[in-house]
Amino acid sequence: MKKIKVRTSTSYDIYIERGLTKNCGDIIANIVKTRKIAVISDNIVDKLYYDTIETSLQKNGFTVSKFVFPAGEASKSIETLNQIYTFLCENNITRSDCIIALGGGVVGDITGFAAATFLRGIDYIQIPTTLLAQIDSSVGGKTAIDLPCGKNLVGAFKQPKCVICDSNVLSTLSDEIMSDGMAEAIKYGMIRDAELFELIASHKLENVNEIIDDIVYKSISIKRDVVENDEFDTGERMILNFGHTIGHAIESYYNYQTYTHGSAVAIGMCMITEKGCEKNVLDKLINCVNAYNLPHYCNAPISELLKLCANDKKRESNYINYILCKKIGQASIHKVCITEFEKFILN
Amino acid sequence: MKKIKVRTSTSYDIYIERGLTKNCGDIIANIVKTRKIAVISDNIVDKLYYDTIETSLQKNGFTVSKFVFPAGEASKSIETLNQIYTFLCENNITRSDCIIALGGGVVGDITGFAAATFLRGIDYIQIPTTLLAQIDSSVGGKTAIDLPCGKNLVGAFKQPKCVICDSNVLSTLSDEIMSDGMAEAIKYGMIRDAELFELIASHKLENVNEIIDDIVYKSISIKRDVVENDEFDTGERMILNFGHTIGHAIESYYNYQTYTHGSAVAIGMCMITEKGCEKNVLDKLINCVNAYNLPHYCNAPISELLKLCANDKKRESNYINYILCKKIGQASIHKVCITEFEKFILN
Repeated sequence: MKKIKVRTSTSYDIYIERGLTKNCGDIIANIVKTRKIAVISDNIVDKLYYDTIETSLQKNGFTVSKFVFPAGEASKSIETLNQIYTFLCENNITRSDCIIALGGGVVGDITGFAAATFLRGIDYIQIPTTLLAQIDSSVGGKTAIDLPCGKNLVGAFKQPKCVICDSNVLSTLSDEIMSDGMAEAIKYGMIRDAELFELIASHKLENVNEIIDDIVYKSISIKRDVVENDEFDTGERMILNFGHTIGHAIESYYNYQTYTHGSAVAIGMCMITEKGCEKNVLDKLINCVNAYNLPHYCNAPISELLKLCANDKKRESNYINYILCKKIGQASIHKVCITEFEKFILN
Repeated sequence: MKKIKVRTSTSYDIYIERGLTKNCGDIIANIVKTRKIAVISDNIVDKLYYDTIETSLQKNGFTVSKFVFPAGEASKSIETLNQIYTFLCENNITRSDCIIALGGGVVGDITGFAAATFLRGIDYIQIPTTLLAQIDSSVGGKTAIDLPCGKNLVGAFKQPKCVICDSNVLSTLSDEIMSDGMAEAIKYGMIRDAELFELIASHKLENVNEIIDDIVYKSISIKRDVVENDEFDTGERMILNFGHTIGHAIESYYNYQTYTHGSAVAIGMCMITEKGCEKNVLDKLINCVNAYNLPHYCNAPISELLKLCANDKKRESNYINYILCKKIGQASIHKVCITEFEKFILN
C-alpha cells in the first residue's frame, strides 16, 4: 500500500492500493475514535460500492447509516445540503462521530462542506470513486456547493481525516468520465512533471489502465506539494488553475451541458498555450489531449468567453490570474488587469 | 474611544464609544481595502440605524447595498441564508468586498456564517445593536444558523475584521431585551470578575444605564481573554457555558417561547449554583438576577430537563461538562458522565 502524507493545518494520509475499499474499515478504525459513521453517496455509486464498504466497516465494529442522493451536478445544491443536515440530525451524529464521502467530485464537495459546517465541523473521510475525484477534488480540503448563479460559490476549507484511493473502482467508469479525469492528470504533467507528461503522452485512453496507478500516485503527490505550500489558495495554488480560467468560461458558456469539466480544461489549456507558448509545446499538448478523446478547441466566440472570464464571481477586483507552461513541467502565474488579459487572448 | 484587541487566528479590534455608529464609515475605511459593502440587517434595526450607517459609509466613499429580513430567531434559517447568498450574488460581492452585520445575535450569527462560506470566506464586520450581541455573540467568531431539529447546529468559526460597539443604541432596547443581555454580564462577573459582579449587583435594571459602558467594556474584555486562549472551543472556552447547560434545556423544554436566552441562563446559573455551591454565593446570585428582572427558577420538571441535557446534539459521546463558580469570580469546569451529572442535579 502506498501512503502520501499531507501536511496542512490538520495533517492526514492518502492511502492508495487496488482493492482498498474492501478493507477500508481496517484503516478507518485506526484513524477515528468513534464507532459511528454516516456514509453520504449518490445513487450510482451507492449501488456499486456501498455494500462492500458497509461490510468492512461493520466487521470493524462500526454502526453505519447512509444518505443517498441522485447522481449529478444538480444535486450539489443547498437543498441537498439541507437534506444531509436533517439526516445527520435524525441519526444523532455528534461532534465525535464521522462522515464518509463515497463518490465522485459532487459527493466529495457537498459532503465535505456538510462536515465543515455541521456542529461547526466534524470529521470526514473521502473515498473518491472517479479519477477526477481521486487526483483532484478529494485532495486539498476545498469543499463547496453550487448556487443558481454559479458553481462552487459557497464553501469552506476543511481537510479530511484520510483519503482512501482504490484504482480498481476506476474500471467501472465510462470512457467519458475517465477522459474527464485525464485532463487533470495531463495538467499536473504540464505544470510540474515533464516525466509524468511523457508517460501519459506515450499512452492513450484505450491502454491507460496499464499506467493508471502511477498516474494517480504522481498526480496526488503534485497536488499535495502545491496544497501544502498554499493551503488557503492565496498564491502558488493558483498554478492548479492552468487551463481553468478559460475552461470555466467554456463550461459556463455552454451551461455546463456540452463539455465536461475535463474537456473544457483541455480546451482551456490548449488555448492559453497557443497564445503564450512555442509551437512545439502546443503540438505536444494537443496530441496528448486528443489521445484521451479530449477536445483542443471549441466554437464559442472568444469575445463571449472573455466576458465570462471578466465576470467570474470568484475573481478579485480588476485583475485576473492566468497560468502558462512555457516548458512542459514548468508553470508560471501571470497577474494582469482584465484589459491586458483580453489583449493577450485576442492577439 | 476604547479599543480592545482580540488576538485570534486573525486579529481584530473592538471599538467602543457612545455615538460610534455615526462615524462607523471612518473606522471601516481604515480597515478594509474595498469600497463596496453589503449590509445585512433585520426590519426593526434597519429602520432605526441603517440610514445613519449608510450616510457614514457613503461619506467615506463606499457603495452600499442592503438585505433586510424579518426580525426574530425564526429567520436564523437555511432559507434566509439562501436569500443572503442570492443577494450577495446579485450585487456582485467578490472576495475582496465586505459584509456588515447590523443587528442583534440573529443578524450577527447568520451574517457571520454567510461571510464564512460565501466564496469560501469573505470579510465581515459586526455592528451589534443589543447588549447580548455586544458583550457575547459578536465577540469570538462563532457563527451559526438553526436547523428545525435544534439551534446553532450548523456554523463555522470566522472572526470579524472589527466590531463597532455604540452603547447609545442600547437606549432603544425594551426592558426585556436589556435583561436578556444582563444575564450574560452577570455570568462574566460570576466566572471571572468579582468586582464586575459587585458593580452589577449594586445596581438594578432601572439604573443600569449609569454603568453600562463599564459593563460592556469589562464583559467584552473577559470574553476576549477566554476566546484568545481557546478560539476553537476545545477547553477553557467552556467556562462561558456557566448556566448554559441547563439554560439550553430550559429554552428547549419551553420551545424557545416562555423564556428568553438570558432568562433561561439566569435560571441555569442559579440551579447549578444551588447544587454545587455555598448558600451565600447562591443568595448573592439570586438577588442579582432578580434585580434585573431575571427569574431564578422555573417549573419545568427536572427529569425532563435532564433528558434534554443528555440529548444535547452538540454534546460529545457520554460526557457532559458543567461549570461551577464556588467563589464569585472563579469558574471551574467539571467533566462527568451523564449518569453522574444526573445524580449531582437530583441530589
